Amino acid sequence: MALKLFFFLSSLYLSLFSLTHSINNFPPLFPSSLSLSLSTQYEELYETKYFTQTLDHFNYQPQSYQTFQQRYLINYTYWGGAANKSPIFVYMGNEGDIEWFAQNTGFMFDTAPYFQALLVFIEHRYYGESIPFGGKEVAYKNATTLGYLSSTQALADYATLIIDLKKNLTAQESPVVVFGGSYGGMLAAWFRLKYPHVAIGALASSAPILDFEDINLANPYTFDEIVTQDFRSESESCYRTIRGSWQQIEDTAQQPGGLEKLRSSFKICKNYIDAGYLEGWLSTAYVYGAMTDYPTPSNFLQPLPAYPVKQMCKAIDDPTVGNDTFARLYGAANIYYNYTGNATCFDLNDTSDPHGMEAWWWQASTEMILTIGGMSNDSIFNPSQNNYNNKETFYKDSFYDPARPTWITTEFGGHNISIVLKRFGSNIIFFNGLRDPWSGGGVLKSISKSIVAIVAPQGAHHVDLRFSTKEDPEWLQNIRKREIKIITKWLKQYYSDVGHPFASFNYP
Amino acid sequence: MALKLFFFLSSLYLSLFSLTHSINNFPPLFPSSLSLSLSTQYEELYETKYFTQTLDHFNYQPQSYQTFQQRYLINYTYWGGAANKSPIFVYMGNEGDIEWFAQNTGFMFDTAPYFQALLVFIEHRYYGESIPFGGKEVAYKNATTLGYLSSTQALADYATLIIDLKKNLTAQESPVVVFGGSYGGMLAAWFRLKYPHVAIGALASSAPILDFEDINLANPYTFDEIVTQDFRSESESCYRTIRGSWQQIEDTAQQPGGLEKLRSSFKICKNYIDAGYLEGWLSTAYVYGAMTDYPTPSNFLQPLPAYPVKQMCKAIDDPTVGNDTFARLYGAANIYYNYTGNATCFDLNDTSDPHGMEAWWWQASTEMILTIGGMSNDSIFNPSQNNYNNKETFYKDSFYDPARPTWITTEFGGHNISIVLKRFGSNIIFFNGLRDPWSGGGVLKSISKSIVAIVAPQGAHHVDLRFSTKEDPEWLQNIRKREIKIITKWLKQYYSDVGHPFASFNYP
Repeated sequence: MALKLFFFLSSLYLSLFSLTHSINNFPPLFPSSLSLSLSTQYEELYETKYFTQTLDHFNYQPQSYQTFQQRYLINYTYWGGAANKSPIFVYMGNEGDIEWFAQNTGFMFDTAPYFQALLVFIEHRYYGESIPFGGKEVAYKNATTLGYLSSTQALADYATLIIDLKKNLTAQESPVVVFGGSYGGMLAAWFRLKYPHVAIGALASSAPILDFEDINLANPYTFDEIVTQDFRSESESCYRTIRGSWQQIEDTAQQPGGLEKLRSSFKICKNYIDAGYLEGWLSTAYVYGAMTDYPTPSNFLQPLPAYPVKQMCKAIDDPTVGNDTFARLYGAANIYYNYTGNATCFDLNDTSDPHGMEAWWWQASTEMILTIGGMSNDSIFNPSQNNYNNKETFYKDSFYDPARPTWITTEFGGHNISIVLKRFGSNIIFFNGLRDPWSGGGVLKSISKSIVAIVAPQGAHHVDLRFSTKEDPEWLQNIRKREIKIITKWLKQYYSDVGHPFASFNYP
Repeated sequence: MALKLFFFLSSLYLSLFSLTHSINNFPPLFPSSLSLSLSTQYEELYETKYFTQTLDHFNYQPQSYQTFQQRYLINYTYWGGAANKSPIFVYMGNEGDIEWFAQNTGFMFDTAPYFQALLVFIEHRYYGESIPFGGKEVAYKNATTLGYLSSTQALADYATLIIDLKKNLTAQESPVVVFGGSYGGMLAAWFRLKYPHVAIGALASSAPILDFEDINLANPYTFDEIVTQDFRSESESCYRTIRGSWQQIEDTAQQPGGLEKLRSSFKICKNYIDAGYLEGWLSTAYVYGAMTDYPTPSNFLQPLPAYPVKQMCKAIDDPTVGNDTFARLYGAANIYYNYTGNATCFDLNDTSDPHGMEAWWWQASTEMILTIGGMSNDSIFNPSQNNYNNKETFYKDSFYDPARPTWITTEFGGHNISIVLKRFGSNIIFFNGLRDPWSGGGVLKSISKSIVAIVAPQGAHHVDLRFSTKEDPEWLQNIRKREIKIITKWLKQYYSDVGHPFASFNYP
């Protein structure tokens, strides 16, 4: 199981699962009967625009001058305009369809009226609709066309697009604040550090920028330890049931009729059954349940109830189920995969990618070499060694070129970050929720007066960026208030620096 | 003359002159009889090493993984060692042979004993010996091979090499301070801004980082105005003689036997004579004389006496010469081109490039689009409009790809630099000498407590970085003392931050 789990731990969300390219052993993500196409209820949130983007910013070969259409979403509703130097809030798109991220970044919509902010959501190159070379068929074909997919090119895309947009709006003096969650949060933090002349500040939510190489804070076991702890904190028996189940699944699969038993226990569709795949499928539910353990019902990776980990453990501990471990696990999986109740069976071979994330495997195998592969002895999964070396070998064998595992820290740093940034840089918020397994690679301690860590012990993956609801717990409301206060301070300082009146804006 | 002068104003030193590639109308640089090969007296200053460098850091196409041998020079003599966390001083090589820059950056050698510093001078890709693709024949052939020559790739080279070197020396905790002059000074400043995790501070000497696009401070006439002012400040008649000479040269060239008269007046070799080339040749002497108007004898671009502008004006104003303007101008040119007295004639067709700078034309026509083409009405040269638009057209026609005139400001900023960096970044010294025509594009006002401008009214192009001599004027001694004091402060702060004793070092 280790190898499979490693695959999926390497992806910030899930795209490695949905990849058929040279991987033939990975768990699926979505039950075949569930269509998770993007909601239409958000249509009024933004207009869709396209920007003619340069293919390679750092290179002057003739082919570097090729362009592609980069999609971005824009909302002028709340903007106070260029004359008022009203701010521009920009979301730094991550590894997927930008509409998906816009619809799950309600914080920007919720706060825009207060800040009179223009909202812009830029799609990351090679994801969603922003595909070079006329489409995925060519763009994803091989390393020659995929080679232009990198985090540095993406950041340069954002700088280029923002500068051009501001020029077209004659809004050169409108301050830009950037936002992002997960990989998008990394990009937001890095953008503030690399392009301070474009963005006055960054809210980097759940950005595991320390999950690289040998950076002290990022031990490869933390991801696994946090998932384990999330379930264990709900109930010890829930944890023990899951922990003990892997051997039981493998034993059952070995027995005559065992696979059929597993199929019927977990309502797996008839087309395919395999113990490894089933384990991957269950692990996915636990990990993504932990990542999206939000305090209110949500529909980010899947439609889920509030506190899905609690709900999964409730199913596992359900006293009415009797002694059947598989029935308990099925109850938990059904919460993650079938909260809407529409699924009649689950297809382990389903490789659908409703969020347009399939190019992540390329990033994960070239530069985004996250150090999260290890299982500790107390793991809710099967304990195993951190298999980083295997990982590197795997990348070398499977893909075109060797990984560059030290590139991210060379380009963006990370080692001794508190000393490096203590006297350099400013205006970054690092939010992390400690129930989020990615928080182990996040910045959890404030570095300076204006590079601050906000830590929510009860929080999950970029929960602060979600639309607010009436049911939000007080701690979440307070965190958002704190973030608004800090962003207000950045803007106040900027307006003071450029000698522009601040009082004319309607801040909270 | 405007077009030719534009060529040479586009280059930080002189490489555009020495370029035969698709330009057939440019002045030469060096008299054919003068061999300016690198001095051997500096051999004991450093060891030569090579680093296997990645061709393209920002791109994962198969060809990006190609490597080349990057030359660097290293001096361990003064280093206090890794155990003492003694500092590492790194020179960011600019557009030429790294030995040439090392030999003209005595400041690092002079201060190394005090700081117990390791000295490293890294050569810029595509210059000197650090040529990809096995050599210039292939590397300089076309845009496909030249395309990898860019400032961002060079900065990433430096980060990669420094990190690797520190790892090999187990000196990860030795603080790095970077140095550079001219384009190397730009790279030093940008390196501190982009790679604060690699360098704790930068001394950016005579770095015209504001000479791009429409940045307010950099008006396209300042370069010309400063050269003009340098000569005018020596004597009004010197200025007027030069200013009036262009028409006289052109008139003479039109007359029967006029070209022969020009040839004999200026001791031009028999192989080639042309009025435009002659004007370029004279302009070069005035501009580079102004740039290198050092207070002591020097041998940077040419062997020169102390205060060469004063010497040239003395020759022009020489009362013993009589009324022959050409004889006066010849006297000035002879100081610039023939201070050693070895030249018997000057070859206008000489395209020798003793400093390995020929690839600069590529940078100047892709990204380093400096806004310095204009001549003002009072110009010592022929007044003309700032011909930026012509320039862009020229680049488009002559070379493979259009220039990207907004890229440098997109990537590195520059607009409103004082507001952008007021609350971002730290530990940069911007030195500028106001007699240096490049100072018009420099940072002349301190931005924050630790991003400081040091301005020397009497100073020329990166004069602070030169070896100290007993004849150095007091202002120059004081400037170097101030720079040493600031660098000491950076180091003190670093050692305090990492909890390492500072007193054990032998600082001045």
